[in-house]
Amino acid sequence: MEFHTTYSDNNYTIYVDNGILNETLQKYTSQYNQVFYIIDSHVYDLHEEKFTNFDTVIKVPRGESFKTIENTIAVIDELLDQNIKRNDLVVVIGGGATGDGGAFVSSITLRGVDYIHVPTTLLAHDSAIGGKTAINRPHGKNLVGTFYRPNAVIYDLDFFETLPEEEVLSGFGEVIKHAMLAGKESINRLVDETKDGLDITRLNEFILYGIKTKMYYVSVDEKEDNLRKFLNLGHTLGHALEYSFKLKHGHAVVLGIIGSLYISNKMYNDIFDLESLISYLKKIGYDLSPLKEMNTTEMIHYMSSDKKNMRKSFIGYIILREYGHPELIEISTSDLEALLNEMKAII
Amino acid sequence: MEFHTTYSDNNYTIYVDNGILNETLQKYTSQYNQVFYIIDSHVYDLHEEKFTNFDTVIKVPRGESFKTIENTIAVIDELLDQNIKRNDLVVVIGGGATGDGGAFVSSITLRGVDYIHVPTTLLAHDSAIGGKTAINRPHGKNLVGTFYRPNAVIYDLDFFETLPEEEVLSGFGEVIKHAMLAGKESINRLVDETKDGLDITRLNEFILYGIKTKMYYVSVDEKEDNLRKFLNLGHTLGHALEYSFKLKHGHAVVLGIIGSLYISNKMYNDIFDLESLISYLKKIGYDLSPLKEMNTTEMIHYMSSDKKNMRKSFIGYIILREYGHPELIEISTSDLEALLNEMKAII
Ligand SMILES: NC(=O)c1ccc[n+]([C@@H]2O[C@H](COP(=O)([O-])OP(=O)(O)OC[C@H]3O[C@@H](n4cnc5c(N)ncnc54)[C@H](O)[C@@H]3O)[C@@H](O)[C@H]2O)c1
Ligand SMILES: NC(=O)c1ccc[n+]([C@@H]2O[C@H](COP(=O)([O-])OP(=O)(O)OC[C@H]3O[C@@H](n4cnc5c(N)ncnc54)[C@H](O)[C@@H]3O)[C@@H](O)[C@H]2O)c1
Repeated sequence: MEFHTTYSDNNYTIYVDNGILNETLQKYTSQYNQVFYIIDSHVYDLHEEKFTNFDTVIKVPRGESFKTIENTIAVIDELLDQNIKRNDLVVVIGGGATGDGGAFVSSITLRGVDYIHVPTTLLAHDSAIGGKTAINRPHGKNLVGTFYRPNAVIYDLDFFETLPEEEVLSGFGEVIKHAMLAGKESINRLVDETKDGLDITRLNEFILYGIKTKMYYVSVDEKEDNLRKFLNLGHTLGHALEYSFKLKHGHAVVLGIIGSLYISNKMYNDIFDLESLISYLKKIGYDLSPLKEMNTTEMIHYMSSDKKNMRKSFIGYIILREYGHPELIEISTSDLEALLNEMKAII
Repeated sequence: MEFHTTYSDNNYTIYVDNGILNETLQKYTSQYNQVFYIIDSHVYDLHEEKFTNFDTVIKVPRGESFKTIENTIAVIDELLDQNIKRNDLVVVIGGGATGDGGAFVSSITLRGVDYIHVPTTLLAHDSAIGGKTAINRPHGKNLVGTFYRPNAVIYDLDFFETLPEEEVLSGFGEVIKHAMLAGKESINRLVDETKDGLDITRLNEFILYGIKTKMYYVSVDEKEDNLRKFLNLGHTLGHALEYSFKLKHGHAVVLGIIGSLYISNKMYNDIFDLESLISYLKKIGYDLSPLKEMNTTEMIHYMSSDKKNMRKSFIGYIILREYGHPELIEISTSDLEALLNEMKAII
């Protein structure tokens, strides 16, 4: 399957399928003098046989540990050592973290060289669209970066074979979020098709749905001045839980979404059947216990420093008026804490 | 005087005049919550009285020494320490080097914050247009950077009062280049108005001309795929001389231009009156002796690694068919060396 982005310019194609890596890559690499491959070292070890005909491979620390200034500069220096030119190509192979860091490298080396992302996790469907690149600083995640679009995204689902279940569930968290933002029909189909468990070989369609939904928000607001903020559904409480319980990102987002829908139900007369949703989530494998165990005072403390906040003692929180209709509300820290405590009862 | 850029979008205004800093700045700063000032430490010491009402000042190593990854990251960390937000403003005060580094910082902090450049050298008129940001690596100059436009350029010529003569001459080198690229009329007027010496208080007009000429080339080819390359007139031999004799950049460019016109004369029947040009340049203060003393074999060696080269043993060289009509030629290294040796006689 192919999806074409719908920006006003600099569009690119996202290929989603099994076993497409080498054939699709070749369409692009044949147009360049030199091609450099930046590969997550763990992915390299697991899938070495896929990379045998690659010339210049730069293995990088796995996952999030790559996203430091030191590591990205080391890669840039390696590219410069190898005499990279403005019209060469960089191919970045790995999850969202490798993608973020590799795209950042591509965007600042020689003021920007072409790059292709080959996502190897389910979560990375999220970063396939949006053009955000990033590395971390001691002050926090993703604080340094650029907006820079890839020349293509080649999503070869064969990589999923080695993905641990917790990574699948984490990625699926963002898939759920995107389906809820897309609307009732999307989320209902998603739940229906996966209610007996996640079959990693049958997620192509939902990956594409997720990409399409994200494309919609990003195309109306690339620089996150307004609507794009809705993509943070589940992220306010999610980030606090992620940090406090050291959860995988998408897992935390799922927990955060429950928090959002709980508030929606309070505001809009129980429009969501939270009970069914919760039992579905448990069934497919999510551990919801952090929502029961969280220290709400501590959560409020984290959420108070969120970028979306506009007033002191109030927290900017994204809820759903209904599926497909996100809203940004401001809720006082005391009201929020009371609601979160109340919610513990239904987990 | 004000000049408005003519890109297809994201345009900005360049203000050029004496004593305009604080008043013009205020028009912008009043729109922001927080404003951070990145200032060349040498400029800070010389002009401290101009900066008394600035809140958050970050002094940075003077000139080119700022353009390292370590220094730029230190500034980013300082901005993050001070809790910079996406909608805050950075004001960068200094020459082209401070501008390059400060703009780079602005372009990658929180994926890009607004910034204003306040150039304090004549040479920086060149970087007021073009949106190139850069830092250096051990491999070479300007190898890491972004394309990122300022929100305004405020050129307060009062800063020139403390500019050493060699910096004035260096900046004027690029002014001459821009006038030659603009056409016969421009360069003739420039020579005519300055033939009795450079009066730093009367250069506003030529700064604006230079900016306009650069704007033309940049607007037709922002990413330097073709026409923008002509802005490198004088830079091929210039860079070699700059490196070998440790010259100021614009001084080296002037010497490089003489080399270009010498080749033009060989190809196109002495269309340029080089003798007059040389005596004019000497009169206003340029030391042309490196052109006599250079080791041409060494120069060829440097030029062979130039980015513009397309064929082995040939050097891509920009000459002028006439003023206003640059051409990119390929010249064999042996022919070029012979010509450069021959040229020594006329210096
Ligand atoms: N740019 C964006 O718009 C955007 C959007 C969402 C997330 N992100 C970023 O993405 C990152 C999270 O994404 P992620 O979970 O994909 O990150 P990741 O790259 O850290 O991958 C998670 C882990 O899975 C391993 N892994 C990757 N592919 C594998 C495979 N096929 N088999 C086995 N193991 C594999 C990695 O080595 C790593 O340990 C975060 O850094 C986040 O900031 C960016
Ligand atoms: N981005 C672009 O398009 C572009 C274009 C041309 C040049 N540049 C860059 O600009 C730099 C060269 O420009 P520059 O010569 O302005 O560099 P600079 O910033 O290094 O300034 C030169 C010296 O003058 C000092 N100085 C600055 N203002 C002064 C003042 N008012 N009084 C006294 N001293 C002062 C500085 O401390 C420094 O020592 C290079 O790094 C080059 O790469 C960039």
